[in-house]
Amino acid sequence: MRLARYRGPNGVKYGVMEGDQVREIRGSIFRAFQTTGAVHPLSAVRLLAPCEPSKMLAVALNYRSHLGEQPATKVPEMFFKAPSSVIGPEDSIVIPRRAGRVDYEGELVVVMKRRCRKVTRRTALSYVLGYTCGNDVSARVWQRNDMQWWRAKSSDTFSSFGPWIETEVAPGNLRLVTRLNGETVQDTNTSLLIHDVASIIAFTSQVVTLEPGDVIYTGTSGATRPMNPGDVVEVELEQVGVLRNPVVAQGRKR
Amino acid sequence: MRLARYRGPNGVKYGVMEGDQVREIRGSIFRAFQTTGAVHPLSAVRLLAPCEPSKMLAVALNYRSHLGEQPATKVPEMFFKAPSSVIGPEDSIVIPRRAGRVDYEGELVVVMKRRCRKVTRRTALSYVLGYTCGNDVSARVWQRNDMQWWRAKSSDTFSSFGPWIETEVAPGNLRLVTRLNGETVQDTNTSLLIHDVASIIAFTSQVVTLEPGDVIYTGTSGATRPMNPGDVVEVELEQVGVLRNPVVAQGRKR
Repeated sequence: MRLARYRGPNGVKYGVMEGDQVREIRGSIFRAFQTTGAVHPLSAVRLLAPCEPSKMLAVALNYRSHLGEQPATKVPEMFFKAPSSVIGPEDSIVIPRRAGRVDYEGELVVVMKRRCRKVTRRTALSYVLGYTCGNDVSARVWQRNDMQWWRAKSSDTFSSFGPWIETEVAPGNLRLVTRLNGETVQDTNTSLLIHDVASIIAFTSQVVTLEPGDVIYTGTSGATRPMNPGDVVEVELEQVGVLRNPVVAQGRKR
Repeated sequence: MRLARYRGPNGVKYGVMEGDQVREIRGSIFRAFQTTGAVHPLSAVRLLAPCEPSKMLAVALNYRSHLGEQPATKVPEMFFKAPSSVIGPEDSIVIPRRAGRVDYEGELVVVMKRRCRKVTRRTALSYVLGYTCGNDVSARVWQRNDMQWWRAKSSDTFSSFGPWIETEVAPGNLRLVTRLNGETVQDTNTSLLIHDVASIIAFTSQVVTLEPGDVIYTGTSGATRPMNPGDVVEVELEQVGVLRNPVVAQGRKR
């Protein structure tokens, strides 16, 4: 099942994808919901980021191909991304003035279903609602020079995810591809994650309670390249879909 | 005016402090509200953290006395604290297992009133609702050894603030004292902030939109000491009040 959030004729709603249409639901995607009779073609709605996280976590250095000369991390090296940085499909990624180089990072994104604290690796995936594509936009100069990665990873528009939450896929063996202006620039598989989804949730939840709708970016592969105004970035996750965002300079219309 | 949030006979409510009583309000503390006829003695309610931030920021190294041998920072060095780590007055700070040393950090905390993006230093304070006391609890071993400060600063219970939001105080010259089991262990004045409140908001809002109820911890002074189970920590901010929290070990009742 693919759960979407969208702005349509009835306002902002959650819905279930049915091919090129979305069927409005009533209730909570985290607990129980009923489908309704309201069905809209995708061309008549605007897809939004598929949920509204109370917080977002991300993992650094979680593919060997992204490590360079560094040794593999012993535990997941987590950081926060701010909810104010969230954008959805087709929203513009804005390159801030004076940020310097800003890179894409195509990632598998986990969406939590249930409140989760101190869970084990064995039960961790039962707390997950589903998976989606993410672009963990990263300002490399700020990432290198600031003490912490707050603006490097959480400037407005730096957290794209979507286009919907796929609830029936297993996260362990999915091809993950990023394209910049149509050219494939990242091509990996989630089987290559150093710390897998269950390990990340088990580790993180020992000290940080995860809430329904909280989001975890699981890390990026290889060497990334900068994005520039006018570019279009797509992150495609096998069995899930494609997340597409144009890139603009600050000051232009979003 | 002192704005509080509390659990009382009518559930979780916002109210205005009137001496040792709190008067329930109707409406939003960020926009407009009316007082009601419901008044409760503080002994009949439980004060909570005085708002529910969508995100929390904090400043590192913002008092010269906390810098040690390091030079003063040129810009505010920000980091995020997660909303899931919030506790209020009298809630227990929980020392996680295997965290090692966990310190108090007494701070002036800013609560935002209006959405705020790219504001100047000159107008920044007009976006502020008020000020309160904060304890930016810090696990020093994790802070030193992890790549980022996610669990060092945002483990559950690591973000205490309260007891209420004082809306009529100027933030630039307030004595700020921390007591550990009654002994004064930090004693500074907000006039000694390297980056003052207006500068922090102006700088941060260039790239990160601040929302109503968002919270900024402005930094701590001097050399801090560890807290241990059984301790009681108080942060007192002049003209505002006292934030008091007991300390327990993980596994005990919160």
